Amino acid sequence: MQFEHSATQRWILGVDIGGTKIATLLVDANAAVHSTLTLPTDISSPQATLDSIENAIHQTLRSAGVPLGSLSAIGLGIPGQVDSRTGVVKHAVNLRWHDVAAGELLSTRLGVPCFLENDVRAATLGVYRFYNRQSAHNLAYVSIGTGIAAGLIIEGELYRGSHNMAGEIGHIQVDVHGPRCACGGRGCLETLAAGPAIARMARERVAAGAGTSLSSVAGPLTARDVYAAAAQGDETARSITGIAGTQLARALHMLIMAYDVECIVLGGGVAHAGAAFLQPVLDEWQARRDESPLAQMMLKTDLLHLLPTTFHAGVWGAVAVATNGLPAISFKHHAPSIANVAFVPPIASELGAAS
Amino acid sequence: MQFEHSATQRWILGVDIGGTKIATLLVDANAAVHSTLTLPTDISSPQATLDSIENAIHQTLRSAGVPLGSLSAIGLGIPGQVDSRTGVVKHAVNLRWHDVAAGELLSTRLGVPCFLENDVRAATLGVYRFYNRQSAHNLAYVSIGTGIAAGLIIEGELYRGSHNMAGEIGHIQVDVHGPRCACGGRGCLETLAAGPAIARMARERVAAGAGTSLSSVAGPLTARDVYAAAAQGDETARSITGIAGTQLARALHMLIMAYDVECIVLGGGVAHAGAAFLQPVLDEWQARRDESPLAQMMLKTDLLHLLPTTFHAGVWGAVAVATNGLPAISFKHHAPSIANVAFVPPIASELGAAS
Repeated sequence: MQFEHSATQRWILGVDIGGTKIATLLVDANAAVHSTLTLPTDISSPQATLDSIENAIHQTLRSAGVPLGSLSAIGLGIPGQVDSRTGVVKHAVNLRWHDVAAGELLSTRLGVPCFLENDVRAATLGVYRFYNRQSAHNLAYVSIGTGIAAGLIIEGELYRGSHNMAGEIGHIQVDVHGPRCACGGRGCLETLAAGPAIARMARERVAAGAGTSLSSVAGPLTARDVYAAAAQGDETARSITGIAGTQLARALHMLIMAYDVECIVLGGGVAHAGAAFLQPVLDEWQARRDESPLAQMMLKTDLLHLLPTTFHAGVWGAVAVATNGLPAISFKHHAPSIANVAFVPPIASELGAAS
Repeated sequence: MQFEHSATQRWILGVDIGGTKIATLLVDANAAVHSTLTLPTDISSPQATLDSIENAIHQTLRSAGVPLGSLSAIGLGIPGQVDSRTGVVKHAVNLRWHDVAAGELLSTRLGVPCFLENDVRAATLGVYRFYNRQSAHNLAYVSIGTGIAAGLIIEGELYRGSHNMAGEIGHIQVDVHGPRCACGGRGCLETLAAGPAIARMARERVAAGAGTSLSSVAGPLTARDVYAAAAQGDETARSITGIAGTQLARALHMLIMAYDVECIVLGGGVAHAGAAFLQPVLDEWQARRDESPLAQMMLKTDLLHLLPTTFHAGVWGAVAVATNGLPAISFKHHAPSIANVAFVPPIASELGAAS
């Protein structure tokens, strides 16, 4: 469909859709933040989900006093397989969507062009455009949460691969004798370093009678509990976060040898654990550097960046998806100040959801 | 420097420079083969090597009756680290070159623009332009010889990485407990799947008294000997080629999960062993496919192509490097027929050199 544009239509809305929450971000043409909102996702049916997305959009605009007609575009990050050219969501397990033409449906209902992208790829665009301190042209954003996936910027462009599968590093085999993965394989990275794997290892240690503070945690153990215990010096927890960090460090090494990126940004629920998450990764890199001059050259620690929890890559990414859909608008030279970034509330409890 | 061009200057010369041989290929504007030549490389000094390159160029032109002034450009594939923008060879161990401004030197001496590229990347361009049966836009060429490296085409463009290191998969760790590598690391892919590793494993088995036909091979054992014995059913040789194939298959799986390429072309001296080389790789992929639906989707066997020994990727790649340097000339729609390809003699004994 066709949309008319005028000089007064200069607002961009980003919408990050998760299985439990919808987060929005309204910015102007200078990427200045004007409104942001988080609402629950209704996943009772695809129609109900679309309604809750539309509702979140209207509420965000209302709180900023911006009419719908002043939006240039809406970008949406979707947790699933998306054909970004057609706006069709092929599969989104957590939304229970299969072959939903959400781009066309929302564009028609709202009268505003809506552009869709997979959530990790959207977040990668968000990091590239709005949290790219080194102005890197080759960058990987690695999301570590319920699953593990990398989004890739190659020579300044989002790279999706031939079948939309580029960056699916969660299913790289890191241990031939490792646990069975949901994909059917054995020892995939996700079975040793994703949130549910960290929680599983903790449950196994507690069940085996390990002397650990984790045995006194109320309710089901989460990855967040494990990192909190590791930060307090709990040896069992440290052993688990050590396994996860070592395997992730190896996968990142592989990613660097394959892509030779200038910058890897780590985000997602598990990465929110901060230093307790990052240190085991750095320790494994240091061990590699100690034995190999090539590793010294390739595994530079200033190449790794932990995304601050105050920067919500999801909504900034959705904004970037919207501007990518409108070639006339580019924020490349209007990166927001850190003050603006901090204004965006972190989406809490992702770590809990990731385990 | 500046060069004048005219309609009569319509020849392209590709030069593939190895540590022992220089191979050339002269083609016209339709990529039809007019002359090809192989001469020894004089590596007694950088000056002597440049002289032998110049001599190979003159001899090739003389045999075709083409004057030097009719060349539009010369492309050169160099076994080492090359800055393709400046034509400076930073390191080429087998040529004993360090910081040789070969592009400028040869361009000045010959009065023809000379463009340089790393040999694996040049071969990748050659495969992409002249042996791309599926018209893939995302393609990896993996060279398995003395070392192992991948050249990468991403969305139709050669991708070199941020530090010219993209595709250095020979130093991905495939076995934490594997042999020590020349890079200082442990269990790098090269220590288990490159030519010297295959020869080393054979020597170790023979020294340990294994009952194998390899113990009666005259002279130092090579990877070629091992593949020949494996093809004859020798169990020790098959065990070794099985290890090499399994590890290579895992690294290729990783490459696919990271890049989601449409096509992987396998070449280099070790790959010249043909079916004896390829079968263990396919066997490991089949094992992965048997246990995982995701692997079934990603590890399609028609994605793997063994480069025919009659197609010399090195010289075709050098031709592609020359045309890449001249944006006005494009062979994209003038791929040579297989008859032309077969006309290029295979460079023999690369397998021997690789072990």
